[in-house]
Amino acid sequence: MVLTDELTDFFLETRSYTETICEPLETEDYVVQPIVDVSPPKWHLGHTTWFFEEFILKNHLRGYESYNPNFSYVFNSYYETVGKRVVRADRGNLSRPSVSKVYDYRKYVTQHMETLLREPTSKEVQNLVEIGIHHEKQHQELLLTDIKYILGNNPLLPVYKANYQEHLKERQSQQWLTVPEGIYEIGHASKDFCYDNELGRHKVYLQPFSISNSLVTNLEYCAFIEDGGYKNFKLWHAEGWDWVKEHNIKAPLYWHLIDGEWQHYTLNGLQKINKQTPVTHLSYFEAYAFAQWRNCRLPTEFEWEIGSQYFKWGQRWEWTESAYLPYPNYKKAEGALGEYNGKFMVNQKVLRGSSVATPNKHKRHTYRNFFQPQLRWQYTGLRLAK
Amino acid sequence: MVLTDELTDFFLETRSYTETICEPLETEDYVVQPIVDVSPPKWHLGHTTWFFEEFILKNHLRGYESYNPNFSYVFNSYYETVGKRVVRADRGNLSRPSVSKVYDYRKYVTQHMETLLREPTSKEVQNLVEIGIHHEKQHQELLLTDIKYILGNNPLLPVYKANYQEHLKERQSQQWLTVPEGIYEIGHASKDFCYDNELGRHKVYLQPFSISNSLVTNLEYCAFIEDGGYKNFKLWHAEGWDWVKEHNIKAPLYWHLIDGEWQHYTLNGLQKINKQTPVTHLSYFEAYAFAQWRNCRLPTEFEWEIGSQYFKWGQRWEWTESAYLPYPNYKKAEGALGEYNGKFMVNQKVLRGSSVATPNKHKRHTYRNFFQPQLRWQYTGLRLAK
Amino acid sequence: MVLTDELTDFFLETRSYTETICEPLETEDYVVQPIVDVSPPKWHLGHTTWFFEEFILKNHLRGYESYNPNFSYVFNSYYETVGKRVVRADRGNLSRPSVSKVYDYRKYVTQHMETLLREPTSKEVQNLVEIGIHHEKQHQELLLTDIKYILGNNPLLPVYKANYQEHLKERQSQQWLTVPEGIYEIGHASKDFCYDNELGRHKVYLQPFSISNSLVTNLEYCAFIEDGGYKNFKLWHAEGWDWVKEHNIKAPLYWHLIDGEWQHYTLNGLQKINKQTPVTHLSYFEAYAFAQWRNCRLPTEFEWEIGSQYFKWGQRWEWTESAYLPYPNYKKAEGALGEYNGKFMVNQKVLRGSSVATPNKHKRHTYRNFFQPQLRWQYTGLRLAK
Amino acid sequence: MVLTDELTDFFLETRSYTETICEPLETEDYVVQPIVDVSPPKWHLGHTTWFFEEFILKNHLRGYESYNPNFSYVFNSYYETVGKRVVRADRGNLSRPSVSKVYDYRKYVTQHMETLLREPTSKEVQNLVEIGIHHEKQHQELLLTDIKYILGNNPLLPVYKANYQEHLKERQSQQWLTVPEGIYEIGHASKDFCYDNELGRHKVYLQPFSISNSLVTNLEYCAFIEDGGYKNFKLWHAEGWDWVKEHNIKAPLYWHLIDGEWQHYTLNGLQKINKQTPVTHLSYFEAYAFAQWRNCRLPTEFEWEIGSQYFKWGQRWEWTESAYLPYPNYKKAEGALGEYNGKFMVNQKVLRGSSVATPNKHKRHTYRNFFQPQLRWQYTGLRLAK
Repeated sequence: MVLTDELTDFFLETRSYTETICEPLETEDYVVQPIVDVSPPKWHLGHTTWFFEEFILKNHLRGYESYNPNFSYVFNSYYETVGKRVVRADRGNLSRPSVSKVYDYRKYVTQHMETLLREPTSKEVQNLVEIGIHHEKQHQELLLTDIKYILGNNPLLPVYKANYQEHLKERQSQQWLTVPEGIYEIGHASKDFCYDNELGRHKVYLQPFSISNSLVTNLEYCAFIEDGGYKNFKLWHAEGWDWVKEHNIKAPLYWHLIDGEWQHYTLNGLQKINKQTPVTHLSYFEAYAFAQWRNCRLPTEFEWEIGSQYFKWGQRWEWTESAYLPYPNYKKAEGALGEYNGKFMVNQKVLRGSSVATPNKHKRHTYRNFFQPQLRWQYTGLRLAK
Repeated sequence: MVLTDELTDFFLETRSYTETICEPLETEDYVVQPIVDVSPPKWHLGHTTWFFEEFILKNHLRGYESYNPNFSYVFNSYYETVGKRVVRADRGNLSRPSVSKVYDYRKYVTQHMETLLREPTSKEVQNLVEIGIHHEKQHQELLLTDIKYILGNNPLLPVYKANYQEHLKERQSQQWLTVPEGIYEIGHASKDFCYDNELGRHKVYLQPFSISNSLVTNLEYCAFIEDGGYKNFKLWHAEGWDWVKEHNIKAPLYWHLIDGEWQHYTLNGLQKINKQTPVTHLSYFEAYAFAQWRNCRLPTEFEWEIGSQYFKWGQRWEWTESAYLPYPNYKKAEGALGEYNGKFMVNQKVLRGSSVATPNKHKRHTYRNFFQPQLRWQYTGLRLAK
Repeated sequence: MVLTDELTDFFLETRSYTETICEPLETEDYVVQPIVDVSPPKWHLGHTTWFFEEFILKNHLRGYESYNPNFSYVFNSYYETVGKRVVRADRGNLSRPSVSKVYDYRKYVTQHMETLLREPTSKEVQNLVEIGIHHEKQHQELLLTDIKYILGNNPLLPVYKANYQEHLKERQSQQWLTVPEGIYEIGHASKDFCYDNELGRHKVYLQPFSISNSLVTNLEYCAFIEDGGYKNFKLWHAEGWDWVKEHNIKAPLYWHLIDGEWQHYTLNGLQKINKQTPVTHLSYFEAYAFAQWRNCRLPTEFEWEIGSQYFKWGQRWEWTESAYLPYPNYKKAEGALGEYNGKFMVNQKVLRGSSVATPNKHKRHTYRNFFQPQLRWQYTGLRLAK
Repeated sequence: MVLTDELTDFFLETRSYTETICEPLETEDYVVQPIVDVSPPKWHLGHTTWFFEEFILKNHLRGYESYNPNFSYVFNSYYETVGKRVVRADRGNLSRPSVSKVYDYRKYVTQHMETLLREPTSKEVQNLVEIGIHHEKQHQELLLTDIKYILGNNPLLPVYKANYQEHLKERQSQQWLTVPEGIYEIGHASKDFCYDNELGRHKVYLQPFSISNSLVTNLEYCAFIEDGGYKNFKLWHAEGWDWVKEHNIKAPLYWHLIDGEWQHYTLNGLQKINKQTPVTHLSYFEAYAFAQWRNCRLPTEFEWEIGSQYFKWGQRWEWTESAYLPYPNYKKAEGALGEYNGKFMVNQKVLRGSSVATPNKHKRHTYRNFFQPQLRWQYTGLRLAK
């Protein structure tokens, strides 16, 4: 466990970084919710704050008075334990509290948290603070990808920040790494922070497999498009094929065919596709279809976790073939925090790795991210296995 | 036809009043669209401006360059003639152009319009300007009622403006006015401005009828509620009854039952119902059911137009029994302006009168307002006939 | 009022004709409901029977025992007064009662009605019987048009009856009939049977108008299609245009473009379009758009009623411009029968005339039929006015 | 591989048994489709026949002429490779081909199959026949459960067959079986028939676990209901809880609370719940919530496969915690038959075991059944693990 001073610094740095992400925004950008999955930035600012107020200050700071009792109703995400809340699809219908009120609220809660952290604190409180920090980091990533969606679906295609880099490095030459059959250990092992869904370290038996050292590139993905990948039902799941037809999908999210050439919206504005960089903003359905087209498959999350010791990762969230399910001996936390992970363990797929939007100290090779198979607004790509 | 100086004053006063309505707003309030019928205030600001740019400046001011060519896509409402546009339900998903950009756009267009109006202008242009002014006045009313919806559906129930009066006077004592059978003239007659749907003055034969001198009050409407009006299918149209059950309707829009007492959201915030003032925010279905319950009926729009010479009106839009249909010899205007009225003449009901939100010089007893029968966010009430 | 013997004959002949319509069916054809507006034939057989049982036998035949108490639940259409009922969209989900049970039920009720009619009966009962007969006649028409829909949407396009004539005569040469301005009387006048919505004979003032002596033909309608009528938004209501785009409408219902030639499904099977006969299976939206294209309009129901003294009608239900609204002094009947007409008087358009499917003694020039503007499965056509 | 005579017998016996299941039906019962998941019995009769015609007779019987070329359109289920087909939700809208025509079609295809089977046949054809037989067996189970749904949702609640037994034996006393940690082999091993999704026998590492020797009973499930299981969100997945609230779920499918006592529709008609027999007609969501309530969990499909050597099974399909995913080295078949299983491997859960509706020779402990987590119309129950 970190000492309290370190924890306070970690806390303050995290709180501050959330606001740094929002610096380039206009007030209006904080308010809208173009699809149900994308929350307004001011909601993220408020919700991460509410988390500290609701789970820590109200119970552990003597004499604490909440900033505004109605905010619990506005900023609760999905914690049924905590009471009623604004329906998710209505977040973008709320003009109040205003952005400046939300910043006031942040300041108020941050200051009271500092007071709390300067006092001697129990192990329990330290644990809660650490969860709150990681919760906010998780929202930092969503905040950035939600901002991208808000700007990237605006007909004016505004720039978020000039020269923002959405990918790290050019790819190295593609190679297959081979992993032998055998028993492997899966799950979080160290004393560092992790979520409950990574615990229950356990043995799995893996068949021999090969996994690529690098992500699939835009060049490779363009070949899939040109070969009619979006028109060949044999490559798709039945649900995936319905999704392609219903939404008339022809390319990754944010791609525009302009005068016969693929361009895509980036946080720097509209740009030509760089063929050497990893393809991103794919659904699981597209990742699967691409792998089928290459006569390969996606790795399972176990193969990924073992393989990741041997390749570089961190560019993109990578779809795996694994459904999001509890590890053996998985235990939900008590109380409201028990709703953090477990109740989503159906009809979602696991993503492994991290993306350019993932904040520091929030990347680890046991991290289990998860989304519904049709979602594309995260920085999602794929790595082949066979 | 008014002279140009008067027209310029009328134009400037109208442009200015739109902005006056928005003065109490926070920036965030300009952005949201909680239901498809309610447009974001910044959209109204931009759309009324676009109307002048698109239909007048582009065609009649030599050398005019549009402020931003993309704005036509953003601020077109429903003019198919003019080209592609943002889908109506997406207006609240656009954070850009920002509010300050929209005000810049207004200023730019207003200044160019002034330039145009200071030159000698043709009759055609004067007509277009007059339509543009009345179009903006129509949006002034929607702007206010949309603001009410945005604030009144926010869980914080913020005040728009303290002491805003949503009704004019206490009611006088109720009396029945009797109108004899005979031939009457209907439709606009003077040389003043009117919309195309009021033209084609023509004779109608009216049976003898009685019409109330005053609107139904909250007191009377509460009696309807207490007598089980919302639970008695016999009072309702089949479609109305489906609407009541599907949306679990129990009272007019904005009414809240708090500790056994009816309160309602007003632009001054939450208030107790004033029993003596006219009931408002009713759908046509509710107005009809109330009239059935009283063994009366709603007046037709012709009865209303004739009767309105004998009673005071102007408190509330009043639902009539008439469907919105063309008058005999109705002619749509040529070009895009022909889309103003005629294409909505199916499945809507006529409202007559005006409301507290209706701006000056936009009230006349031949005015034909129209909405779908389930809508309630305008200041809509009813007057009985028999 | 007819004497009882005549009434009994009228009753028996009507009951028998309903079954005649069903003679060409396979058992399976009695069961399905391909869209919510189209009821299974066995439901029509049962519902018309239930009407006599529920409104007459239960109250007026001493000692009557209902055939099966559950049938009230199965065969009630929309009478809220009478109690719970199968949701309309579920009628096609019920395999039981079987077709033979429904015929038994018919026989049982018919026999008991005969018993009742052979006794001295009150005026009230005679009135109810007359309504029941006309109710069954109304369903005879729906029965035939529903059968056409069931067979015409089956991929095997089965024949109902060889040589069934869906139109009466070739058209005569088109001429305009002119009717002068003035006061006219509208509504049912004689002592013969009519529905409550035709009563309240009253004066209307009509402007001078012209009305065609003949219906629009397939030839004329093909010209509209070829001229891009379905692609030109200017001809359509806003709601109509949305309907065209959402359902990708390109021709009347039952039309198929086969090898570049229009064919249509008829009760004789698939046939080439006969260019000389009246076009049918149009929605109101299409009828309106066609009239716009011809720089004409649809007649109002009052113009139609007056004009119909001077032209032949009875080929097709004719869309009018009139909304379905109560006549002055309209009074709903007491009790459940009050639900027959009045509660549908919103968002529907009036059709006048009758069709080849309308049974004998169910045609009169004051008859007010009504449907939603998008519906097309009745034999609906149009006549121009100007 | 079975010899051809045996195969012919197996084929004929299977074809005959399908028709035996339908014997108690009225013609009308063959036609309806009350929900999209439930197909009309005549569709099952035709589709299983079409499978033999399309995949075997057309390609392997010299000179074969198809019974009716349109039937491919009508009876294809989901094979995109084979061409266009009736949309699944429209199966219940087709009255034709009639039931007797479908029986003719069956006879025609069965006879031609006999001809083919009496000739010397290749290994490939024998394989296809075997798949066709197992395909028909799979539909035999769906046929029975679909019939139950059709009758059980009819307000008359008709009996399918008196004394039909929906459960096998009373339960034995509940005990926990313990399985030690270690490497186990999973997947089909013998030479007998299996589907492609069972192949790729492979090692898995299992943690130590306990699994119940018996299924959860109605008695236990009633205790869950009485303890407020359907009202306690903590027991449910987020998606499951939404499902409960949206559909107002309060008990398993077919349960009715009558005068305070639970009864359920069975193929013998409405009956009191037998507390000693296994609970059935549960969704995965309900099975999961029940296990949570008991502080247990569902077994994985691997635990089930290993454990099933030690307990009796075959009463009910048992929900497992496993998502339906490909085994390592899973290979889809070539051509249309490759669409049999693989394209459904997303968003479904695995069920293991079999039910009273599962036909002979279609039960094996490696069988992987799969459905969406909200479906309940199969005989689905659960067994606890921990």
